[in-house]
Amino acid sequence: MMSSLKHVNPTVKGIKESAHSVLQSLAAHVTQEIAQGVQKPFKGVIDINSGDPHKAGMKPISFVRQVLAVCLHPELLGNKTLPLDVRLRAQRLLEVCEGGSVGSYTDSSGIPHIRQSIADFIIRRDVGVPSYANNVFISAGSQKGLMVILKLLASGEGDTQTGVLTPMPCPHTLPTLLDDAGMTLVPYQLMEDQGWAVDLSELHRALKCGRGHCNPRAIYISNPGNPTGHVQDWKSIEEVIRFAAAERLLLMVDEVYQDSVYGQGKEFLSYKRVLFEMGKEYSETVELVSFHSLSSACMGECGLRAGYMELVNMDPEVMYFVDTMLCTDISTPVTGQLALDLMVKPPKPGDHSYDTYTQEILLIRATLSQNAQRAHEFLNDLPGMSSQPAMGGIYLYSRLHLPSDIIQKAKIVEVEADVLYCQMLLEEEGVFLGAGCQNGETTGNHYLRLCILVPTDTLEKVLAQLASFHLRLIDKHPPTDR
Amino acid sequence: MMSSLKHVNPTVKGIKESAHSVLQSLAAHVTQEIAQGVQKPFKGVIDINSGDPHKAGMKPISFVRQVLAVCLHPELLGNKTLPLDVRLRAQRLLEVCEGGSVGSYTDSSGIPHIRQSIADFIIRRDVGVPSYANNVFISAGSQKGLMVILKLLASGEGDTQTGVLTPMPCPHTLPTLLDDAGMTLVPYQLMEDQGWAVDLSELHRALKCGRGHCNPRAIYISNPGNPTGHVQDWKSIEEVIRFAAAERLLLMVDEVYQDSVYGQGKEFLSYKRVLFEMGKEYSETVELVSFHSLSSACMGECGLRAGYMELVNMDPEVMYFVDTMLCTDISTPVTGQLALDLMVKPPKPGDHSYDTYTQEILLIRATLSQNAQRAHEFLNDLPGMSSQPAMGGIYLYSRLHLPSDIIQKAKIVEVEADVLYCQMLLEEEGVFLGAGCQNGETTGNHYLRLCILVPTDTLEKVLAQLASFHLRLIDKHPPTDR
Ligand SMILES: Cc1ncc(COP(=O)(O)O)c(C=O)c1O
Ligand SMILES: Cc1ncc(COP(=O)(O)O)c(C=O)c1O
Repeated sequence: MMSSLKHVNPTVKGIKESAHSVLQSLAAHVTQEIAQGVQKPFKGVIDINSGDPHKAGMKPISFVRQVLAVCLHPELLGNKTLPLDVRLRAQRLLEVCEGGSVGSYTDSSGIPHIRQSIADFIIRRDVGVPSYANNVFISAGSQKGLMVILKLLASGEGDTQTGVLTPMPCPHTLPTLLDDAGMTLVPYQLMEDQGWAVDLSELHRALKCGRGHCNPRAIYISNPGNPTGHVQDWKSIEEVIRFAAAERLLLMVDEVYQDSVYGQGKEFLSYKRVLFEMGKEYSETVELVSFHSLSSACMGECGLRAGYMELVNMDPEVMYFVDTMLCTDISTPVTGQLALDLMVKPPKPGDHSYDTYTQEILLIRATLSQNAQRAHEFLNDLPGMSSQPAMGGIYLYSRLHLPSDIIQKAKIVEVEADVLYCQMLLEEEGVFLGAGCQNGETTGNHYLRLCILVPTDTLEKVLAQLASFHLRLIDKHPPTDR
Repeated sequence: MMSSLKHVNPTVKGIKESAHSVLQSLAAHVTQEIAQGVQKPFKGVIDINSGDPHKAGMKPISFVRQVLAVCLHPELLGNKTLPLDVRLRAQRLLEVCEGGSVGSYTDSSGIPHIRQSIADFIIRRDVGVPSYANNVFISAGSQKGLMVILKLLASGEGDTQTGVLTPMPCPHTLPTLLDDAGMTLVPYQLMEDQGWAVDLSELHRALKCGRGHCNPRAIYISNPGNPTGHVQDWKSIEEVIRFAAAERLLLMVDEVYQDSVYGQGKEFLSYKRVLFEMGKEYSETVELVSFHSLSSACMGECGLRAGYMELVNMDPEVMYFVDTMLCTDISTPVTGQLALDLMVKPPKPGDHSYDTYTQEILLIRATLSQNAQRAHEFLNDLPGMSSQPAMGGIYLYSRLHLPSDIIQKAKIVEVEADVLYCQMLLEEEGVFLGAGCQNGETTGNHYLRLCILVPTDTLEKVLAQLASFHLRLIDKHPPTDR
């Protein structure tokens, strides 16, 4: 019987209620109050704490949606109001679905044709570095793929438990994932004053420290950085690879924001590309997993649930287990898989949809880059806030110098001070931002996280309300800890 | 490093290569050979070993696909060639998506509006028995929901490991799921000569036996039966409920084929409905989880990945953990969730789409029921085959009396004899059927499993090729074990 929690699987029971779910519950509560007619100084909650672009009002890419609509309802193949390349593409994709229907199960690692499309995309992206469909695994979101890899790595308890070198700050979803998988988080601090760069000596320090209390077997990297907005250059990537090679660590690289680098003079470089230019000593030995997602910046199709990972230098038997573990889901949702194909193989010059597609992508990129700059400047003008400029990705991560009154109050009510700040902001202004402690902050510093992939007017509204709240707060509690 | 399998998570490593994957690999191999131009006496593999109706050529429900197409590409809201009720429904569904887009994440337990639609459907189905949206959890397929419940139940090792009373034969996917979850399968035999009914004294025997080597805490039921085609009557369900109540077992009921009962005089009765007519002593205490799926008979939308479970009498804290565990997937694919809404709230009389919808459903049901009868009669006419008639569900499960030569040969090549039969059938005729050992058969009897939710001409082709293979086999190896 499950009637008593005593009997719930002890591993599951260990999952903590995170700061994230505390704020999430409060947001749901406020939303419900508004629905029930409770008077508030705002009309609804604006949630830009996490990356969900469509929810925030960003528009989907028409080409993607048109092709999917035809695949779902193939009678539209004959509908002349839809561009010809849309219909041809839908026809081609239906051919790779079993029985010509998106309603059939697929191989658990994904539709072979689409795994091939992804490999082709990777080859183009990495200027010729080889990539093979068999090394590409499609899953219901990149987080699912990551979970599979974590589960494969997990073993031991206490001092022998698998440890993962994890950046601080890290994506706010990561600590819970590591916890669920039964792994030890081994923190390495990113360098705020260098725009959140990775520091080699810090990696060595962290590893040494980790080896004292667990068995570190992997390093996690987010590039472009979530939530930091940092974009690694060639030299930095090379350093991390050499470090992983020397220390025999698996490299897990979240590269889901590869399509959204906007910092002046910055470009996205994949770990795989750098690895393959370092010579066979590295390219044939370092174990690398790279994640990408349909939820990423320009597509923003979080709800369709699809992502992929490419495994490099992984033991064939490990690949077999990856496949086995993906089997539990039976297969990845087909609409998501088809959308992945469209993401990695967009319309080409000359295709009917090319111009529209290109304009839509450019607009999203322009919005993102302008928002990044605008939010950075705006926040830096507020007393007690200072952010590093974001160079890529969809977040801005800003330091928050809190009045000591607030820090004291937080101690009394037993929440982190940045969570308290976010709670007050949510209650007073209906603006839902993320708190740095969700990103693993343990330095005692406080931070705010904003998703900046939102329509410009939404961002303006958020900034205005944030400023109004923040200035009221500073006014009431003059800062003392700056 | 994962470079050596020594380091793969020992639990994951324990997952065996099942008979299922052996046949699956062979089918893939044969398909590949044909693609490479190898000459075969058949054009391709016909796979009816598992339930994947669209793959086998069944058609989707137009209403479902039309509404989804509009939801994906909202410009179609203005397309007058689509029925008005389709467009109105799509508009309504877009309103319940965050930001009006299927591209947004949803609550991890599903879109609240759709959980409510499901609860309303359950109330209608169960003639007024109350159902609450908060007890309904949407997941990426019913198998995912089942996995969550299993993970919650799992604990202990050896003698203290959680055990699950499991029917023999059981769904071919179940043994692997139990294995993955780290649970002990405690078999109870269904009564073949009573059309695979559940037998109370056998449940008692099995439980007693299970208590000797594990900690049985749940009983799994498939009704309508997969793969047996059995449909339980009121009395039988009541017996199982009393048994579960007396023995304090959680009841896990796979009711995914609730829409496909065709046996003369048979009807689907939900466990919940029976439970609630048994009085408060039962209806307020017995813990019940019921599963349903979009992959089920009439919809057959396996590729969209959505299902739900309703939890009855479960501890609120357990509900909390269910929600937490669903969080790892972030959310269920939105297209699947919307399709669930359409499944439980189809067009009503008077709606534009009502007639087409009704005709399509009737056609699917008629095909299924005719196929069930046809396959049963055809197989029973073959020497060495005898099947119980199916009353519901989408499988026929037929006893196979194998020549002793074949049984000997199987011993030599170290496969189960029914797997050997299926391998030969696949190689010689390109027909892919399931083998009873995948359904947990341990009695030494042999069985074949056919999915009968396929177009009539496909079934005829399968039957003809099966007969031709079978008669050749019998001819070469006259049966001796009848
Ligand atoms: C670090 C990180 N990567 C990727 C994603 C996208 O996840 P998915 O691909 O599963 O939608 C998220 C979303 O929360 C994330 O936090
Ligand atoms: C016993 C059983 N129930 C339900 C299903 C449908 O699973 P899902 O809802 O995850 O598609 C299957 C599919 O294999 C099954 O074997």
